[in-house]
Amino acid sequence: MKKVKVAVIGCGTIAPSHIKAYTENERAEVKYLVDIRPERAETLAERFNVPNTMGNFRHILNDEEVEAVSICTPNDTHAEIAIACLDAGKHVLCEKPAAINMDQVNAMKAAADRNNRILNIGVVNRYNTAVNKIKDLIDNGELGKVYHVYCSFRAHRSIPGLGGPFTTKSKSGGGVLIDWGVHYLDLIFYSLGQPKILTVSGTAHSELAKNMKDYTYLNMWAGPPDYNGIYDVDDFVTGLIRTSGPTVSLNGAWAQNIGESATFVEFLGDKAGIKWQYGGDFKIYSAKDGVLYETIPSYTKADMFYEEIDGFIQSAMSNVKSRSNIDNVLVTSEVMEALYTSSEKGREIVL
Amino acid sequence: MKKVKVAVIGCGTIAPSHIKAYTENERAEVKYLVDIRPERAETLAERFNVPNTMGNFRHILNDEEVEAVSICTPNDTHAEIAIACLDAGKHVLCEKPAAINMDQVNAMKAAADRNNRILNIGVVNRYNTAVNKIKDLIDNGELGKVYHVYCSFRAHRSIPGLGGPFTTKSKSGGGVLIDWGVHYLDLIFYSLGQPKILTVSGTAHSELAKNMKDYTYLNMWAGPPDYNGIYDVDDFVTGLIRTSGPTVSLNGAWAQNIGESATFVEFLGDKAGIKWQYGGDFKIYSAKDGVLYETIPSYTKADMFYEEIDGFIQSAMSNVKSRSNIDNVLVTSEVMEALYTSSEKGREIVL
Amino acid sequence: MKKVKVAVIGCGTIAPSHIKAYTENERAEVKYLVDIRPERAETLAERFNVPNTMGNFRHILNDEEVEAVSICTPNDTHAEIAIACLDAGKHVLCEKPAAINMDQVNAMKAAADRNNRILNIGVVNRYNTAVNKIKDLIDNGELGKVYHVYCSFRAHRSIPGLGGPFTTKSKSGGGVLIDWGVHYLDLIFYSLGQPKILTVSGTAHSELAKNMKDYTYLNMWAGPPDYNGIYDVDDFVTGLIRTSGPTVSLNGAWAQNIGESATFVEFLGDKAGIKWQYGGDFKIYSAKDGVLYETIPSYTKADMFYEEIDGFIQSAMSNVKSRSNIDNVLVTSEVMEALYTSSEKGREIVL
Amino acid sequence: MKKVKVAVIGCGTIAPSHIKAYTENERAEVKYLVDIRPERAETLAERFNVPNTMGNFRHILNDEEVEAVSICTPNDTHAEIAIACLDAGKHVLCEKPAAINMDQVNAMKAAADRNNRILNIGVVNRYNTAVNKIKDLIDNGELGKVYHVYCSFRAHRSIPGLGGPFTTKSKSGGGVLIDWGVHYLDLIFYSLGQPKILTVSGTAHSELAKNMKDYTYLNMWAGPPDYNGIYDVDDFVTGLIRTSGPTVSLNGAWAQNIGESATFVEFLGDKAGIKWQYGGDFKIYSAKDGVLYETIPSYTKADMFYEEIDGFIQSAMSNVKSRSNIDNVLVTSEVMEALYTSSEKGREIVL
Repeated sequence: MKKVKVAVIGCGTIAPSHIKAYTENERAEVKYLVDIRPERAETLAERFNVPNTMGNFRHILNDEEVEAVSICTPNDTHAEIAIACLDAGKHVLCEKPAAINMDQVNAMKAAADRNNRILNIGVVNRYNTAVNKIKDLIDNGELGKVYHVYCSFRAHRSIPGLGGPFTTKSKSGGGVLIDWGVHYLDLIFYSLGQPKILTVSGTAHSELAKNMKDYTYLNMWAGPPDYNGIYDVDDFVTGLIRTSGPTVSLNGAWAQNIGESATFVEFLGDKAGIKWQYGGDFKIYSAKDGVLYETIPSYTKADMFYEEIDGFIQSAMSNVKSRSNIDNVLVTSEVMEALYTSSEKGREIVL
Repeated sequence: MKKVKVAVIGCGTIAPSHIKAYTENERAEVKYLVDIRPERAETLAERFNVPNTMGNFRHILNDEEVEAVSICTPNDTHAEIAIACLDAGKHVLCEKPAAINMDQVNAMKAAADRNNRILNIGVVNRYNTAVNKIKDLIDNGELGKVYHVYCSFRAHRSIPGLGGPFTTKSKSGGGVLIDWGVHYLDLIFYSLGQPKILTVSGTAHSELAKNMKDYTYLNMWAGPPDYNGIYDVDDFVTGLIRTSGPTVSLNGAWAQNIGESATFVEFLGDKAGIKWQYGGDFKIYSAKDGVLYETIPSYTKADMFYEEIDGFIQSAMSNVKSRSNIDNVLVTSEVMEALYTSSEKGREIVL
Repeated sequence: MKKVKVAVIGCGTIAPSHIKAYTENERAEVKYLVDIRPERAETLAERFNVPNTMGNFRHILNDEEVEAVSICTPNDTHAEIAIACLDAGKHVLCEKPAAINMDQVNAMKAAADRNNRILNIGVVNRYNTAVNKIKDLIDNGELGKVYHVYCSFRAHRSIPGLGGPFTTKSKSGGGVLIDWGVHYLDLIFYSLGQPKILTVSGTAHSELAKNMKDYTYLNMWAGPPDYNGIYDVDDFVTGLIRTSGPTVSLNGAWAQNIGESATFVEFLGDKAGIKWQYGGDFKIYSAKDGVLYETIPSYTKADMFYEEIDGFIQSAMSNVKSRSNIDNVLVTSEVMEALYTSSEKGREIVL
Repeated sequence: MKKVKVAVIGCGTIAPSHIKAYTENERAEVKYLVDIRPERAETLAERFNVPNTMGNFRHILNDEEVEAVSICTPNDTHAEIAIACLDAGKHVLCEKPAAINMDQVNAMKAAADRNNRILNIGVVNRYNTAVNKIKDLIDNGELGKVYHVYCSFRAHRSIPGLGGPFTTKSKSGGGVLIDWGVHYLDLIFYSLGQPKILTVSGTAHSELAKNMKDYTYLNMWAGPPDYNGIYDVDDFVTGLIRTSGPTVSLNGAWAQNIGESATFVEFLGDKAGIKWQYGGDFKIYSAKDGVLYETIPSYTKADMFYEEIDGFIQSAMSNVKSRSNIDNVLVTSEVMEALYTSSEKGREIVL
């Protein structure tokens, strides 16, 4: 069987999920691991038995054997690397968010279009089994008319890497909305069948760590804090989105003075409603013939990274666009940029 | 001690709360109970030992002994009765909502102003002990900067009197927003110290009983259903409000396909947050010196109807406006009307 | 409105459920309460405002105003009283079990037939809302083919009135099977649409109180124990029943050395299964498109005694047989007698 | 010390349990591993350091050094292989079930008898420590008279290898009864001291996968499904067994629409009862002097495969029959065949 040769660029925390999925896929083979810190590439190369490592991604552009790349680098480098790879004729799977603003995202899409190559974004929840079961239930009319979606991605103390790239707008493009909200919004638009976005209104706040040393936390992902660093991103965002289908309201927080995290999505239909715990299971609430039903489904969960990578390999081989192609995911970046713009102007944005 | 003589107009479900509070107040005395269905007035007169009943409120306008009236009639009659009473020189406590639209509310306020009389609205949560404790904590800076309020007034099956006045827009002025939302919004604006409202955006839906016979419920307040009646009001509303202080987001439902009711308000500050269960107690979430605190306050709860009536009697005697005067409560009606207008236009309203 | 005049014969523990239901029914009126201990009749007459009491039921037979009677006396008197009442032209609702053996039950049915009167048995679970919801789900095919029912009515320490009528076979006709099993078996046959019974095999044991003083218990209904009394009934029964529909297996115990009571019925279909907690709610287990569902229904529960009595009054007025008529319930007595016979012979009984 | 030389025939999933136990036993030595697929034998030979592998078991029959064999092949080959080995003078430990019908089982026993050789069946639960503790408690009279055993071996979704040998009657002899029930019934009869079986009545159903593609499951042992294969075995069985001691009732299912698996045995005595979770621990429920006791025993658990093999080696050396000899286990096969026969005829079988 033919195997697509792949390079994985960026060897940070998300990279092993990509590399493992390529390794387990019988139609793929990882030829290169790339990182500007060579020791990070070497550690993973040894772990996953990858033959080559490299410090500068540009060195692989001329290797015609490499047909596809995964980009797992910081957000502010996505556009540059993706465009270079696409222009070199590679298919690209770029981690989420697509980029740090719409100018970059549009330039990436243009590069994919002009080179007739696949550009997928790592919105891996489009391959989550629960999300797809929910999408099926909506598509089959089990919820009736879905008229509202409420989306809550709030934690009480979870700012990642305070003072580092996550909290520095020039590197990340934003805070909790860019980092967590991208997953929630994207999977909502996917589940709803990509409705047209009409208006976006929201407010983003940077509150709990504006004096970095005053931020109390119990543990810190991507930490410890760098008190000489920058904290200029949103730790809370609220918003209201009108679409050609349901309205969507959202509250998200990396940190907030609440008792426990509230991370879920509710799809509210006139026939039934679904509440999905992010990363977990869902319940269905319905009514029929005088009886209210609460239903708890069980199902076999696929490995969503395996499915994401397999879909990418399939697209790379066939040049057929899939659910996570930039054409479908672009709207998620548009809505996030509109939320930030609405927050700055204090007014609703009409798309 | 001088006693203010009072008439209570409308002898439905809310009237006993007023009559009882007047009866227990040593500065007040109920002289008349009024209802267009005389037997309703008579039943309560017997129960509370009130000397006179009357079928038409206009008959009391010329009784100069009556200085104050409580209006407990359906929403669509508030304006007519209140204006007539004010023009007859009476002080007025009118049940919430003030009226079914802003034209009526403004006319009521004008009548109070031109007659130099008190017009209070029955936003009784302004006298709820928990609400006032929360207001004190906010005023004292315990929450730091309050940057967002999230307001949830959602039940899973609670449409009242399907097909009756509650669900007939011409009689009620609206559904869950008018009926429940008025309390939540009003107490939020009160707790925040009456911030200026900047923008209002929202969507109201009439979904779960649009085919009345399909609506499944386990019990019904103000029921049973009248399937020959009308159902043209909102059973769900979502909204986003910008103020000179925090933003406010809200989700409210008389009925929705959710598992259990979610009726609470969260006041989110940069120093601490409060979650209040509507009608119950609250918790404070704060952080200091590396420790997160969850604090459960206990306090003696006053009878909020007694306090409301006592405040009204005091204002009637002194002609000094209080927290529930139309001047303070007007904004709540404005925001509700703006939410409905925004829903109809599909756009944000700038106030 | 015409009211059916009723006599209630037997004023023990079950009688108030009948009397209350008649009293609340606008088409019925209790004229007599009868008990051989007059003070029991008088106490209830005062409580429920019944005009007449009587010590001997035969005195009411000639009162033509009395059209219907409820029989709430001990099991061994059911047949004699019911036949006398039917022969006097009364409609009869007789508490469960119908009688203490099939000879008596057949004689009762013959009396109903020859007098063209209604004879209902107090199998009140046929009016339980949960049971009827389950029956609807089975009838609508939601469970697919129901191929087995497992029925567990086991308690760890619940022998009633040790040494009294409950445990004396000549008075009760049997133990846990007659007392509890009658409800379970009857509601199963009802839910399944009255399938034909093919074979019955079972064993009944009298074990835990065969030496009465050795029986350890935490509390005792219809107690205290009478150690001079008799204990000669089953405290455990196991059985297997083949029908024209599903097989039914059962384990029942008034008392057994188990950790906690296990009182439930499972309806097992090829499409879905239901587990009902006796006296409570039920869950539905199903599977579709690779997903397993656990569904928890909610519904408004009717008062089953009210419904039972209302159905009886309706039958008495119209002479139309209902779900609890002896014609439908007879099979339950047949199966119980067959279980006892099978136990004695150590062989399966073919009906 | 003399070591018994052994051949293990069949190198599937159960074989390693045998080989490991022989290897750890100082009186035994594995000389051959046999499998018709040579690579399976070789893999295990390498893992356990066994010197010889072979494709056809007949080649070892003439090796007089081999005194004993373990048969770990599919059910339908047990009889042929066991008889050939016994006729060649070997002692045999044959995995459970003994064979796929009583004709085969009887022929196996005849071969053991005429050759004066040991024939043990792999009913390994006879060596389970918990089972033996329970047997001791029963033997010592701690439960008083044991009058009933309830046996539940029900899972909600556990059909193994759909479409393969497990679900093909000609290869397996049956479904859940043969595969799981054999263990439960055998350990019950063992614990009770091998009572005489009087009657057997039961029904076996093949329901949940009769349309194989409609069978929903979360994972599958011995899978994946072969939709071109056969599914003609029982996935549910219910039964009632009368013995010279207690009655035994049973419900077993590989798959059923229930919420969670229920795999346990209850031994119900007039003095105490025991509930044993299959494969785990047990509790004792008793009563004395007005107190109910729930007792949780703890004990050191032996390796049941080690004990089984050690018992076999001891029998092979001494030619003394042990607890798992065909003479004791035969009844388990008789009961299973009677259950299947009863199911086909719709009548109880008298043994």
